[in-house]
Amino acid sequence: MGAALALGERGRGRTAPNPNVGCVIVAEGRVVGRGWTQPGGRPHAEAMALAEAGDKSRGATVYTTLEPCAHVSVRGPACSDLLQLANVARVVIALGDPDPRTDGSGVARLRAAGIAVDVGPCAAEARSAMAGFLTRRALGRPHVTLKLAVSLDGATALGSGLSKWITGAAARAHAHLERARHEAILVGCGTIEADAPALDVRLAGLEPRAPRRIVLSQTASEGWERIATPHAIATLAGVDYLLVEGGATTAAAFLSADLVDRLLLYRAPIMVGGGRTLPDIGLTGLTDAHGRWHISDARTLGSDRLEVYERVRDSAVPAKVATGFAPGDGGKG
Amino acid sequence: MGAALALGERGRGRTAPNPNVGCVIVAEGRVVGRGWTQPGGRPHAEAMALAEAGDKSRGATVYTTLEPCAHVSVRGPACSDLLQLANVARVVIALGDPDPRTDGSGVARLRAAGIAVDVGPCAAEARSAMAGFLTRRALGRPHVTLKLAVSLDGATALGSGLSKWITGAAARAHAHLERARHEAILVGCGTIEADAPALDVRLAGLEPRAPRRIVLSQTASEGWERIATPHAIATLAGVDYLLVEGGATTAAAFLSADLVDRLLLYRAPIMVGGGRTLPDIGLTGLTDAHGRWHISDARTLGSDRLEVYERVRDSAVPAKVATGFAPGDGGKG
Repeated sequence: MGAALALGERGRGRTAPNPNVGCVIVAEGRVVGRGWTQPGGRPHAEAMALAEAGDKSRGATVYTTLEPCAHVSVRGPACSDLLQLANVARVVIALGDPDPRTDGSGVARLRAAGIAVDVGPCAAEARSAMAGFLTRRALGRPHVTLKLAVSLDGATALGSGLSKWITGAAARAHAHLERARHEAILVGCGTIEADAPALDVRLAGLEPRAPRRIVLSQTASEGWERIATPHAIATLAGVDYLLVEGGATTAAAFLSADLVDRLLLYRAPIMVGGGRTLPDIGLTGLTDAHGRWHISDARTLGSDRLEVYERVRDSAVPAKVATGFAPGDGGKG
Repeated sequence: MGAALALGERGRGRTAPNPNVGCVIVAEGRVVGRGWTQPGGRPHAEAMALAEAGDKSRGATVYTTLEPCAHVSVRGPACSDLLQLANVARVVIALGDPDPRTDGSGVARLRAAGIAVDVGPCAAEARSAMAGFLTRRALGRPHVTLKLAVSLDGATALGSGLSKWITGAAARAHAHLERARHEAILVGCGTIEADAPALDVRLAGLEPRAPRRIVLSQTASEGWERIATPHAIATLAGVDYLLVEGGATTAAAFLSADLVDRLLLYRAPIMVGGGRTLPDIGLTGLTDAHGRWHISDARTLGSDRLEVYERVRDSAVPAKVATGFAPGDGGKG
């Protein structure tokens, strides 16, 4: 399942409105098929893995990160039917598909066909790996990652506004890799005026992965998609993973709206003093600040340090957006 | 030598103007004596270890973190003489003593007496373990540790000034342990007015280790020692380890003067926004900010994280203070 999750990562930021699923088929102790959801959402991971496995899928075990779909689409057959036709013996599934067209009926169809089914291994990892699809399903908006590059004292720039460079080359390269894992990047209009950022992916071989560029602004900017408020991210069709890159005002707007799910904190071992820091995010007391974030990853990048925090959400009270979300294709469509 | 260094830590913050040395004596594969510099600086570590070893020191190997002293003082005999009288076979020394009364002559006396001497093992660790004594020797001022408790966005308090509590109980307990490792704690007059801090050591068994309390202020405060400028720390007799506890203005004053050797950064996984952050420290560009700090330790404390940074100093250009340092007793006096 770890291998299937790793394959699924290849589709991250490219499969909306479909989930970035990964699939591995094992026969007689050997991997005979591997698949991941392709750009745009089709073919599905299972279809790709079955095509590679061919006749070897007979009697094989299939590991897939999400429940195989149960619905036939104009874009392709249902994966639960394909698995049955391929005469696989067993299907191991990390996570059930919340899409109402599947939601348990994928498993039911497989079992009705005499295929053994296990659900649950690596469920938490799968939830994290397909956060974009699941956030869109549960909250009606993209999964939002906020990137901040800061000094030890929290400065995102000098008092003068200069921010080139807080972090070093390795941290900046990692931030470019993160861009390639998102369908869109959003910045504030202040950042456009100050830096005119290209927001491209300057990593060899990944240049074509440059995401859509969106600005949070009251007025249009040539060559940029625009939204007027953070909550309007719900209307961004085809965006399940959104990266918010700043500046500090834009970061604060998303934090105030409680629309940040994941925080990428690139930290340089420098003290700035009197620098630009995060403005008000509507906090009324320190008690409210605690318990909202937990660290999920940390690594050294040159002399800098990356910490990844995830928003702790009480699943009973999701930060559901109130504005104009149209259901669209969704699911493993 | 690791054991000797650990023993030396027991004296940290209590032995000024003497270094906090540790000593272990090994005979026939067994530890027969252990010693560390006692509060106030005497007895020395070697004298204490030799007293414990008694006759067993004959032919033994002595591990000591600093070169044994070569000068007789009214407070006790020279350790190099004591070692000779005890008929030890070998002395292993981490670091030479920069005190001009010893500075190589301790080693010379031992060798002249037919004792084998090695110098150098764990020299870097010894340098760090006796930073107070060495900083006083090299720069004429105490070794300064700055403690900051911050949110992920660098806030030391809410915009309103409220700072209870940024960090949790485990981090605060660790900060109290650090107090016990310093001869004095310094805060700004704003902190006294706002919090009236006790600056005591609220850890069971360590209450008597509460350090001297010093305020950075232009005016006297009842019950507090006072200095008017950061550079005046040089005049604090009997203080080789100084802990600066804030607030942000005081922290900035010490950073501006380049008088911070070690930074204790207690970080809570919270975002504050619009909080109090470090004011100007005289930085003119981001290039100047880089290369000044390297991380030397990091650990998790409850849900918080402690990072320790050390100032990278070009030894050719020390941040020597210019004002009134009186040499005093010094050395292993």
